[in-house]
Amino acid sequence: MFLEKVNGPKDVKSLSLDQLQPLADEVRNAVINRISKFGGHKGPNLGVVELTVCYHYVFDSPKDKIVFDVSHQCYPHKILTGRKQAFLDDDHFNDVTGYTNPNESEHDFFLVGHTSTSVSLALGLCKARDVVGGKENIVALIGDGSLSGGEALEALDYAGEYDKNLIIIVNDNDQCIAENHGGLYKNLKELRETNGKAKNNIFKSFGLDYRYLEEGHDCKKLVEFLSGAKDIDHPIVLHIHTIKGKGLSYAEKYKEDWHAGGPFNVKDGTPLKPSTPNTTIYDSIKELMARDSKTLIFNAATPTCMGFYGDEKMDLIEKGIFTDVGIAEENAMAMTSGAAKNGATVVYGTYGNFLQRTYDQLSHDLCLNNNPATILVVSPGIFGFNSNTHLGIWDIHLFTSVPNLIYLDPASVEEYNAMLKFSTSQKAHPVAIRVINQLQSSGEIDNTDYSVYNKFKVKQRGKKVALISTGPIFSIAKETCQQLKDEGIEITLISPGFLSGLDEQLLTSLQLDHDYVVTIEDGQVDGGFGQKISAFYGMSNMKVKNLGISKKFHSDFKPYEILAEHGISKDSLVSLIKDLYNK
Amino acid sequence: MFLEKVNGPKDVKSLSLDQLQPLADEVRNAVINRISKFGGHKGPNLGVVELTVCYHYVFDSPKDKIVFDVSHQCYPHKILTGRKQAFLDDDHFNDVTGYTNPNESEHDFFLVGHTSTSVSLALGLCKARDVVGGKENIVALIGDGSLSGGEALEALDYAGEYDKNLIIIVNDNDQCIAENHGGLYKNLKELRETNGKAKNNIFKSFGLDYRYLEEGHDCKKLVEFLSGAKDIDHPIVLHIHTIKGKGLSYAEKYKEDWHAGGPFNVKDGTPLKPSTPNTTIYDSIKELMARDSKTLIFNAATPTCMGFYGDEKMDLIEKGIFTDVGIAEENAMAMTSGAAKNGATVVYGTYGNFLQRTYDQLSHDLCLNNNPATILVVSPGIFGFNSNTHLGIWDIHLFTSVPNLIYLDPASVEEYNAMLKFSTSQKAHPVAIRVINQLQSSGEIDNTDYSVYNKFKVKQRGKKVALISTGPIFSIAKETCQQLKDEGIEITLISPGFLSGLDEQLLTSLQLDHDYVVTIEDGQVDGGFGQKISAFYGMSNMKVKNLGISKKFHSDFKPYEILAEHGISKDSLVSLIKDLYNK
Repeated sequence: MFLEKVNGPKDVKSLSLDQLQPLADEVRNAVINRISKFGGHKGPNLGVVELTVCYHYVFDSPKDKIVFDVSHQCYPHKILTGRKQAFLDDDHFNDVTGYTNPNESEHDFFLVGHTSTSVSLALGLCKARDVVGGKENIVALIGDGSLSGGEALEALDYAGEYDKNLIIIVNDNDQCIAENHGGLYKNLKELRETNGKAKNNIFKSFGLDYRYLEEGHDCKKLVEFLSGAKDIDHPIVLHIHTIKGKGLSYAEKYKEDWHAGGPFNVKDGTPLKPSTPNTTIYDSIKELMARDSKTLIFNAATPTCMGFYGDEKMDLIEKGIFTDVGIAEENAMAMTSGAAKNGATVVYGTYGNFLQRTYDQLSHDLCLNNNPATILVVSPGIFGFNSNTHLGIWDIHLFTSVPNLIYLDPASVEEYNAMLKFSTSQKAHPVAIRVINQLQSSGEIDNTDYSVYNKFKVKQRGKKVALISTGPIFSIAKETCQQLKDEGIEITLISPGFLSGLDEQLLTSLQLDHDYVVTIEDGQVDGGFGQKISAFYGMSNMKVKNLGISKKFHSDFKPYEILAEHGISKDSLVSLIKDLYNK
Repeated sequence: MFLEKVNGPKDVKSLSLDQLQPLADEVRNAVINRISKFGGHKGPNLGVVELTVCYHYVFDSPKDKIVFDVSHQCYPHKILTGRKQAFLDDDHFNDVTGYTNPNESEHDFFLVGHTSTSVSLALGLCKARDVVGGKENIVALIGDGSLSGGEALEALDYAGEYDKNLIIIVNDNDQCIAENHGGLYKNLKELRETNGKAKNNIFKSFGLDYRYLEEGHDCKKLVEFLSGAKDIDHPIVLHIHTIKGKGLSYAEKYKEDWHAGGPFNVKDGTPLKPSTPNTTIYDSIKELMARDSKTLIFNAATPTCMGFYGDEKMDLIEKGIFTDVGIAEENAMAMTSGAAKNGATVVYGTYGNFLQRTYDQLSHDLCLNNNPATILVVSPGIFGFNSNTHLGIWDIHLFTSVPNLIYLDPASVEEYNAMLKFSTSQKAHPVAIRVINQLQSSGEIDNTDYSVYNKFKVKQRGKKVALISTGPIFSIAKETCQQLKDEGIEITLISPGFLSGLDEQLLTSLQLDHDYVVTIEDGQVDGGFGQKISAFYGMSNMKVKNLGISKKFHSDFKPYEILAEHGISKDSLVSLIKDLYNK
């Protein structure tokens, strides 16, 4: 009734104060329409409906600028800034992404998907405003979960020195993706329980002005609260208490389950497409814990990526065996090094695309010290996320060039298990292991001795052409060879297993009866594994073709389709290799 | 008198309380002996002499474990743990490194050189202790300057949740490398001025127990203070006020100048070898500021790397033109992106080896958003630091594989200036520019249009062999060609200038009359620039040889010597190329 007339912030501003709450209800329904049929981030968006409505009522977007942290809570903002059709009309769900996107709207300022960036980005906007001579309000909207990230804490610290307009809205719903971890959350609790008056105040300690609002879903109170900070002449934290998942009882109750996910029945929250979780990592960690009483498992705010949740996880946390440091990947990596140094058997697992947040800690804190920890690189390469904000195609590039690190790349569940057993039983080096959900069973026990480094596996010995494939796409390589075999062409098929070094003996031996090597990888070809093979053969007569993902922030793809676009499909490879074979 | 009998911590513990201060005086003299003749970190070591003596008096090293942040303040520790000869005997200065080193002593636990890692590493030691069943004290010693780094703040937050023994000594000398920046330093000041009793307390806000000691150079007070925390059953911050440079009046007065540096006269602090600072970056930034009133310069705690210090720097900070965020590289990179987005002309300059701390912000915050900022990569590659703790040989590897980033590599001061003028005058892409102190003048004005991407410069057109060199070592390539020319061999010499893309047209044209391409680079060959050339020619008849630094944490080298070890010297190259030419 109100939403149909809202095509931009000025339409929100033309409403009366009393009309904001009904508008918020309509916005919430629009959010629910999309998430229940299309999936996406649920709890974060439901929690900021009123806050977003009131933001656009009080501030003047796009002159005033808001930076959303992670931007997984931007659905209400998109609805109010000309993009409501993507929420109301099922045929238009694909019109918008799940994150802020300057290509969609002048009301969005950054492509964002990683956490803890909003205050820094906002400070940058401020600094430019000051030198350019602007007068606009700059606002950062950051959730409590994102506060624990180093980048956010660095920015809060610098904001405490900055002396012009900056409004930091802390959207406190007392929940990260999973439960929060870290001492600052005790302080947020104290502040919530004292209506912002607790003696200890993390924000004031950083030198920041501070105000608190308990009623984060009351539009009148929100308007008054936000208006009081508009055009302020110094940085201020507006701490607002909201409820994650607000409006859907099951989402309010089971906050971790309802952070994000697929379509569901609105009536009771049951999923439309029940999923069977992959338990490869979970099973392997359970086996490790049973085998080794010195085991420590580290994670940064994504425990379900290793299969841990609920009471079992909390029990392991209580026992000190499982450690979730919250959104603090750098701390987790350095702790991993320290724990390995002091005699524990350590496994730190997190999504591959977040591990790039901790490159320096991987290199300097862990690998320089050569401490024997295991890093599980979960869902790396093209099999991770398909958003340009969460792209993970650089893991091979980043991990293979750090000295001392052994980078393992299983082509089957059996290889993964054997590699984890190896890495957690040795003290020679840090080891990282790639592991994707789609990893298949090979049906064969893996008895490889991985302490013999860089010994590639020859899966089929043929001639003229050798095909070398990374693990996650090894099935494509295998099918390619099968098809070629069916056509009477027997090439050599190699699964390296090790990506951090070359099997020089094998590669040299190929020169005897091979003219071509084709490499395929599920990550960026530029700076990747294949180029190391090309360089190895640089002065020889061997011809090498590298296939992999192009250097670009790809978005919205299906893994096998984008691989095919880059020549990595059975049909393309059969055709390429036949050409080479018959030359 | 006391020091001569001290060969390890147990000898410190056998002294009486009254003997600690005289021992500290002797330790300070030993530190001064080394730094005045050999150079190194000065202020940090002079400031922790008493603290270190008392640490070893109270705690039981190596059972109890101390982790030094940055570890540039470990000289007194080395003196007391069996390594005093490297401070007392000029012939033995080279026996030890300037940082903690487990290969030197069982009292050192980590190789460390980057900031803000100590609390995380200590937390890792703690976690392992708990699961292994140990009872030792774990101590982190962190300076106030390091506190602003995200990794340290993440760790303080997690420590606030941890519930067993951990002692965090905050060595507060009210100084970073330069002056401190950030709101938390206002809080440290309040705490110092109230003897630790200020209402706001950043450490308590993180949920940590806290005690304060004003007299950080009084051994009796220190022993009492440290003893009070020994064997504590939960994390505690021991905030101790010390004086950076304590014991040398000029070092106490000019703290930034006396952070680190070369040999000096003890009498008055005058340097033994006066240095002429390189003003290439400074001059270029001054020119930019004069040309463009929207200029913003960002830096993270190392303003002198761009030539800014003293009153001029403070004046530019006051005006909001120069921003030093303190040790907070991630925040600086994200701010850079935000400021470029909002219309400023932004240059963020910091040492190359520290920029790897901000890989995710470079990729996600800046380059995904394609905001047109300039990053100055100061002293990258092998021409940065020569310690394995500060190695910078990965900049080409890291920066050339990030989509949207233009990575420029000048071979002369003139090229550097033209590249900076280009990058600060365009709005198409983020641009990073490598710049080393040793950059020479070419004597030629550079009129290159750098908006034509990836056009390599052909400096000499010959045949059969082409030599492609990165900028900092281009003089070696040039001399090689000159010598070959003198011997009647005319090869092709190429200076790419662009490292983030290939000049495919040029490289293709070389195939007409060249059989060999040799690439030389001043960074790690594995994953570097040369391998991209090898990959380009993979399916052709061109033979490619890549020369660069091997994948290893190299240490204690002279740049031209280590280059020569890797085949990058005029003599080696002349010999290699003659062989190829005559094949």
